[in-house]
Amino acid sequence: MAEIPPHPLILSHVKVRPQWRRNPTTGQWVILAPARGARPILLDDDRNPPDMSPLHSCPFCAGHEWNTPPELFAYREPDSLANGPGWHVRVVPNQFAVVQPEGELRVHGDGFFLFEDGVGQHELIIECPHHETNFARLPETQIVEVVQAWHTRLEYLSQIPHLRYGQLFKNQGRGAGASVGHCHSQLIATPLVPALLDLELHTADSFFKQHGTCLFCDLIAREHVEGSRVVLDTREYLVVTAFAGRQPFETWIVPKHHRSHFDRLEPASVADLGRVIAAVLKKLDAALNDPPFNLLIHTSPYHEPDLEHYHWHVEIIPRLTQAAGYEWATNLNINPVLPEDAAHILKDEVLPNY
Amino acid sequence: MAEIPPHPLILSHVKVRPQWRRNPTTGQWVILAPARGARPILLDDDRNPPDMSPLHSCPFCAGHEWNTPPELFAYREPDSLANGPGWHVRVVPNQFAVVQPEGELRVHGDGFFLFEDGVGQHELIIECPHHETNFARLPETQIVEVVQAWHTRLEYLSQIPHLRYGQLFKNQGRGAGASVGHCHSQLIATPLVPALLDLELHTADSFFKQHGTCLFCDLIAREHVEGSRVVLDTREYLVVTAFAGRQPFETWIVPKHHRSHFDRLEPASVADLGRVIAAVLKKLDAALNDPPFNLLIHTSPYHEPDLEHYHWHVEIIPRLTQAAGYEWATNLNINPVLPEDAAHILKDEVLPNY
Repeated sequence: MAEIPPHPLILSHVKVRPQWRRNPTTGQWVILAPARGARPILLDDDRNPPDMSPLHSCPFCAGHEWNTPPELFAYREPDSLANGPGWHVRVVPNQFAVVQPEGELRVHGDGFFLFEDGVGQHELIIECPHHETNFARLPETQIVEVVQAWHTRLEYLSQIPHLRYGQLFKNQGRGAGASVGHCHSQLIATPLVPALLDLELHTADSFFKQHGTCLFCDLIAREHVEGSRVVLDTREYLVVTAFAGRQPFETWIVPKHHRSHFDRLEPASVADLGRVIAAVLKKLDAALNDPPFNLLIHTSPYHEPDLEHYHWHVEIIPRLTQAAGYEWATNLNINPVLPEDAAHILKDEVLPNY
Repeated sequence: MAEIPPHPLILSHVKVRPQWRRNPTTGQWVILAPARGARPILLDDDRNPPDMSPLHSCPFCAGHEWNTPPELFAYREPDSLANGPGWHVRVVPNQFAVVQPEGELRVHGDGFFLFEDGVGQHELIIECPHHETNFARLPETQIVEVVQAWHTRLEYLSQIPHLRYGQLFKNQGRGAGASVGHCHSQLIATPLVPALLDLELHTADSFFKQHGTCLFCDLIAREHVEGSRVVLDTREYLVVTAFAGRQPFETWIVPKHHRSHFDRLEPASVADLGRVIAAVLKKLDAALNDPPFNLLIHTSPYHEPDLEHYHWHVEIIPRLTQAAGYEWATNLNINPVLPEDAAHILKDEVLPNY
């Protein structure tokens, strides 16, 4: 268990609501989430390693359902009851949320220092009932069910009028920011489209206006021709290492069929995505031996018509290097591994069941 | 010493030059620096902790000068010889550089996948001759000499015609991306102005056009009135926790006198900055017990006249939380500590000699 942080004052504001603030010198927003300070690990530094350990203290294991808020959704055995065992995948509100359902949807401040309430929905997807910490080692069928749960929750949240974007993500391993070992993913839905998504949407929009094609459809065509970054090529998905990966072995899963919204995908394509994610993560696990990683879905904002210029996709970012001062000073990531080398390694990882 | 990485192929391209690549889906650049792979820690993950340890193997200790490339600059005892002991602060080329002096200054590619040679100068400032790993615990006079060395090198590089920006930064502790424990800082000078600096310059330029004042001069005035984020207020510098800090206890040192370029600063102000940096780092050390941190200087590009709208400053970013999937997916940082709480704690840390 983590040490108590050095200063009691740090815990003095756990009742303060989450707040978004704008940096006046860059225009970039940050999320102040004092409730995160009440997590088992307050400050996740060298001296407070997260508890990745024993089954008996794990709040996510089957039989420990009382440790989490009541469930929002679950895939369960037909005869099992909500908030008891018998589930395969279980979705609950995040107890240490970075956004909260209540709050005002407007910007406050004096024009210089701007802030607003951190409004939204923060959910936790518990990915297996038994204590497994490496998602890649779950059975493929279990991974497919998890991806189906992501789709179901993202689709559900898309119907809430004030939410504009649902960000699905997964942190595995301490180096990727996980604070609990048991396999889980998260979903943060907000009334704002986050900055990086906004940048991608604008980049794709400009590309479409200039070239008349979807940027991601073009990327697929070019990666096919180029070939050196292709990791896996299935009927529905192309898997490539990112041309300008921010981390070694950054890998993208791009659907071949143009669709702007992941939450509007057909069930068969969702299941197929689950199988491709399983295959890619098993390759990364085999090549890098259980690396810490983040996985995220980029998709189009809610309440938009289908977009011609933007194309949902999955990004998997192994966290093998620590961003240092140059990265924080410049926003330029330094990657020591050529994406073409990474693709060559991943392509060659032969999987027993694929 | 770090383990050998799992795949020999990762080391196959150490002779490949550094390359900048543009992500076609965002326009953001990354630096591919395969030579970084030859550092003692190739992949700095949980299984390869950096060597923060013993004196006898430290390449930066006095008496081990043969472990680094020949020095570019040093403050030394009058009777000592270059590349031998007798120095206080020593500057050498970084052996594992992310940019290289040679290369072409033009963008290559097909219009979609763009890249260019990673040209520039990457220097290492060794901050003390004896084996100290906590910069805050160096004597104030030593810290002042280090800051003078930063100024001297940044000024020197400003005269090289093809370099446009010199980024000074410091990584202390494994959580801040350091790979060597012995106190050191670094300087990467490039023909390009890095993305975040460019964003700050543009934000400040827009602010000046709209309000007729420098954004940073305005920030100082507002922080004075507001008061709750002021950590230290000296004759020449205001120290505040950042209103929208990306990490807990993010602290900025802003000069009260408007100056666009750090490298054009008078010697007295450089020395005074050294004393303020010493005081702030000693406060952070006292409050957080040797936290991992990055320190960086943001200043105006080389070969520009003095700018009315931009104002150099120092940012100190303790690295107390690990960016996770949401941050990588969105570019939004999550900070669990209110900057006003952090300022309150830091203000109250009374320092013996200040």
